[in-house]
Amino acid sequence: MKSDDNALALVKKVTALPGFTSAVGTEVLFANRGEVHMQLRRKADLLQFNGFFHGGVISALADHTAGGAVTTALPAGKIAITIDLHVNFLAPAKGEAIVARAKAIQVGNTVCTARVEIFSVGADREELCAHAVVALRVVDMQI
Amino acid sequence: MKSDDNALALVKKVTALPGFTSAVGTEVLFANRGEVHMQLRRKADLLQFNGFFHGGVISALADHTAGGAVTTALPAGKIAITIDLHVNFLAPAKGEAIVARAKAIQVGNTVCTARVEIFSVGADREELCAHAVVALRVVDMQI
Amino acid sequence: MKSDDNALALVKKVTALPGFTSAVGTEVLFANRGEVHMQLRRKADLLQFNGFFHGGVISALADHTAGGAVTTALPAGKIAITIDLHVNFLAPAKGEAIVARAKAIQVGNTVCTARVEIFSVGADREELCAHAVVALRVVDMQI
Amino acid sequence: MKSDDNALALVKKVTALPGFTSAVGTEVLFANRGEVHMQLRRKADLLQFNGFFHGGVISALADHTAGGAVTTALPAGKIAITIDLHVNFLAPAKGEAIVARAKAIQVGNTVCTARVEIFSVGADREELCAHAVVALRVVDMQI
Repeated sequence: MKSDDNALALVKKVTALPGFTSAVGTEVLFANRGEVHMQLRRKADLLQFNGFFHGGVISALADHTAGGAVTTALPAGKIAITIDLHVNFLAPAKGEAIVARAKAIQVGNTVCTARVEIFSVGADREELCAHAVVALRVVDMQI
Repeated sequence: MKSDDNALALVKKVTALPGFTSAVGTEVLFANRGEVHMQLRRKADLLQFNGFFHGGVISALADHTAGGAVTTALPAGKIAITIDLHVNFLAPAKGEAIVARAKAIQVGNTVCTARVEIFSVGADREELCAHAVVALRVVDMQI
Repeated sequence: MKSDDNALALVKKVTALPGFTSAVGTEVLFANRGEVHMQLRRKADLLQFNGFFHGGVISALADHTAGGAVTTALPAGKIAITIDLHVNFLAPAKGEAIVARAKAIQVGNTVCTARVEIFSVGADREELCAHAVVALRVVDMQI
Repeated sequence: MKSDDNALALVKKVTALPGFTSAVGTEVLFANRGEVHMQLRRKADLLQFNGFFHGGVISALADHTAGGAVTTALPAGKIAITIDLHVNFLAPAKGEAIVARAKAIQVGNTVCTARVEIFSVGADREELCAHAVVALRVVDMQI
């Protein structure tokens, strides 16, 4: 699946801005209108004490990927910011990376919704480790 | 309000283990049976591009504080791990720190629930910036 | 605690309109700016097969009470409609009635949030049986 | 898609028990191991004052359908009861019926998770009107 050039450029630009998202090493894998995939590779500082990816890190990746999925579906100059974030943790994220795949399931003028599947990815397999639903509202982009 | 010594020692021990929680600088402010308060101070790597605390960081702090509130209410040797986490973002977290105050609202043998208020704390005021509800399940502590 | 007359009249009017809310017998107990309490009495058609109040009925009461709490805090002519509803079920609702107590915790121009405690009420005690968080958006009232 | 006979019989039996679910007229459309579809037809008592299906009714159908999806995936003699229910309302449910399609996305020994899409169904089209995620725990069936 090939990314849309404009969507990819927009999502990469927002993801590279200084702050938490870039500091933890978030990588944009795919971006199309209404759908964005991102990845975080395993690093000691992103784990729980048991060696799995931390739930807060999974939540942050889900949130950011959902924002991308919705923002790419909005008119130019608009960005979606999170109202609420709900993450269900389904299995330990033991892999070498986590990959979040977000799809916009509602794009309105004021409120939008995305769902996100988060996979734990190992050498030869991936497993659904979390599922998130994110509600967002539409504001003017300031960046 | 004075912490319970045992609860505080337990929560501090879990919080200091290597991984995301200690890497971001989580501080335990208070711990009692069923109630825990924690804090994160402002650092560039914990922010969004707009200078507010990142939603994922707020979610991580809420999650960890909820785990502490529930675990301190469980029998010795048991720990609570998150089933699902729901965070509502109410106001930009512009302060010098965020403080999460979690209370267990249900402590069962297999499933528990906590609610968390997260405040943005500045020089002279604090503001409720997020509200979270966390469902957790009870497992044997491995640490 | 005495209700505010205007808030109470508004909430009673909306609650009495034809449809599910009035059909199941929803009673308004209290209304003030940003806080509303409602009740449903036990009836066979509101229960699960095990004799407890049905989770859907608890959710409906939570939703409607949250809408009242937020709408009473809005400017005249505005009403809040639900974006999303999250209910945690804490204990079986075995009582003779359920009472929902909702408070607005954020009142914005476009998005609002309320939390709701739902109690199972018996002859001599009440027990917290569910906890809900509701996000709502502000629209023009059409009624 | 043809139902599995055992799954269908189990779900129909639970759905027909006295109480809210049968009183509102819940119909089982499909049941297989881990996936269940149910329907509610439009009736005045299931609507909001604006003529759309009530959010509480949508939540109740989502909850019950999720319970079916998970229970059909459990060992015989086990049933799933709801821990928490999160419903995002995406569009007004204006149709002649609402149909909920639930899939188990995690089936554990103590905790399970299902996601549910709820469609508003009219004469010639259906529209996604809500999306739900339900966490459940496994208990012994008493019926």
